[in-house]
Amino acid sequence: MKKLKVGFIGLGLMGLPMAKNILKAGFPLVVYNRTRSKTKELEGLGAKVAQNPSELAKDVDVIITMVTGPKEVEGLIFGKQGIVAGIKSSTNSNRGSTPKVVVDMSTIGPQAAVKIFSQLGKRDVDFLDAPVTGSTPKAITGELTIFIGGKPEVFQKVRPVLASLGDPLFIGKSGQGQAIKMVNNMIVAISMAALAEGMLLADAEKLPRSKVAEVLENVPALSPFQKLKLSNMVNKKHPTLFSVANMAKDLKLARSEINSGSPKLPFLTRVASMYKQAQNKGLASQDISAILEVMKN
Amino acid sequence: MKKLKVGFIGLGLMGLPMAKNILKAGFPLVVYNRTRSKTKELEGLGAKVAQNPSELAKDVDVIITMVTGPKEVEGLIFGKQGIVAGIKSSTNSNRGSTPKVVVDMSTIGPQAAVKIFSQLGKRDVDFLDAPVTGSTPKAITGELTIFIGGKPEVFQKVRPVLASLGDPLFIGKSGQGQAIKMVNNMIVAISMAALAEGMLLADAEKLPRSKVAEVLENVPALSPFQKLKLSNMVNKKHPTLFSVANMAKDLKLARSEINSGSPKLPFLTRVASMYKQAQNKGLASQDISAILEVMKN
Repeated sequence: MKKLKVGFIGLGLMGLPMAKNILKAGFPLVVYNRTRSKTKELEGLGAKVAQNPSELAKDVDVIITMVTGPKEVEGLIFGKQGIVAGIKSSTNSNRGSTPKVVVDMSTIGPQAAVKIFSQLGKRDVDFLDAPVTGSTPKAITGELTIFIGGKPEVFQKVRPVLASLGDPLFIGKSGQGQAIKMVNNMIVAISMAALAEGMLLADAEKLPRSKVAEVLENVPALSPFQKLKLSNMVNKKHPTLFSVANMAKDLKLARSEINSGSPKLPFLTRVASMYKQAQNKGLASQDISAILEVMKN
Repeated sequence: MKKLKVGFIGLGLMGLPMAKNILKAGFPLVVYNRTRSKTKELEGLGAKVAQNPSELAKDVDVIITMVTGPKEVEGLIFGKQGIVAGIKSSTNSNRGSTPKVVVDMSTIGPQAAVKIFSQLGKRDVDFLDAPVTGSTPKAITGELTIFIGGKPEVFQKVRPVLASLGDPLFIGKSGQGQAIKMVNNMIVAISMAALAEGMLLADAEKLPRSKVAEVLENVPALSPFQKLKLSNMVNKKHPTLFSVANMAKDLKLARSEINSGSPKLPFLTRVASMYKQAQNKGLASQDISAILEVMKN
């Protein structure tokens, strides 16, 4: 079987190592990034560099986007010199080819994903929402967990590409990959707040944080994710694996799902406002464990 | 070295299997329980049964209490026919013997532990706070985690007895075993609420809970403790390993540590009132995962 030709847009902290893994797995790769300098390393490894998303889309079977939020993704797909424009021109000159697939791996929320799925559907372009969990270290090792929403047969088609990035899990119809990502991230955020409050209670009890960390490292109450942040809380340093700004954005998306209706989800509401506060207090680029520094005030 | 003679008071869901493990490890054992019938099985295994805490205390080197909360522990130690009364009479008839040790393994909070430590100290009786984590299954297998507060040399003396129950960790001075137990339990409680809210968001997104559980089983966002409760949330059945009533009590103790001062700990405050609410709504004897059934209203 012929290897799918892949286009990759968004070479940030996550995107760059992901694009490398696709190349390493042997897929012909075309990349685009707004800041051109970030494409250099991949060019050296054999990737082609496109001038804009439109040019990239013409040339490939699968287009992956890995950017910040819903506005950025919609801009890349539907904007001037965007993906749709490129697909349209290539289809005109190349009738009868199978539909191209756009796979968005950013965290954009279910509402945006369903909207894009439906708008691309009208243009005979397939779409999957495929947000990931695992932060940069797992992006580098190709061990991300990938939550897929969309048509199962479209997932099967691009599965080998996604498998080069980690473990792709088919969740359900369009938007449901995003939905479970939100569930995952709100649990991460609230658990981080729980750990931070635990440390503050320990402070009040005059328990040294290093002792607390040593004990909590070995109890079933903590998740691997929480354990990863214990040393940040002991050292009061928060080197970024997952930024406050990104978490604030994800929690805002989660809240927008339940804004008008029941259930109320008071913990989500509270933690969302805490991360927003942390962002406003200059902690935007620090790791999510930096929430502790806001909570103690 | 002569084996320590152990007295064990409180043969409930936790206490009964713990007492069995002490006996199994070869320590001569005397037991007392308010409801006499619960002593039968241990009597059959070779334990002596005392008529009251006072009689039990006379006869042993170490007295372990495993009951509900601070009032019960204080009653057992200082009440009529209590532990202190028994120690006093045995000391009078047996001068020169080493001080007896009272080890309370209930969750009573740091304030009560420090108070008992100080009052027993005046009477030349040693005291350790030694609350446990791990629920009934770990009590049965002798794999509890035990958080010790008190004098290190007293801990060393009774360590072999505690080692028959699980992994004893020396935390620090009197009350600090209780302090870290509170930190642990507030993290457990808030994490349970986080998981419950995640399930409610998933419901709103029309994600089947069984699918959510299957995915969350494999992500680093969840703790072993949370994973243990996923099936309860899918099946909407909450068989008790750790009851709502006990968690409500533990959270009340934690809150009483920070009632007047800063930090404010809003998540602890919220989750404490939720568990109280769950208790008042008839869920007291169900597992802590039943919090989900209150939150959805």
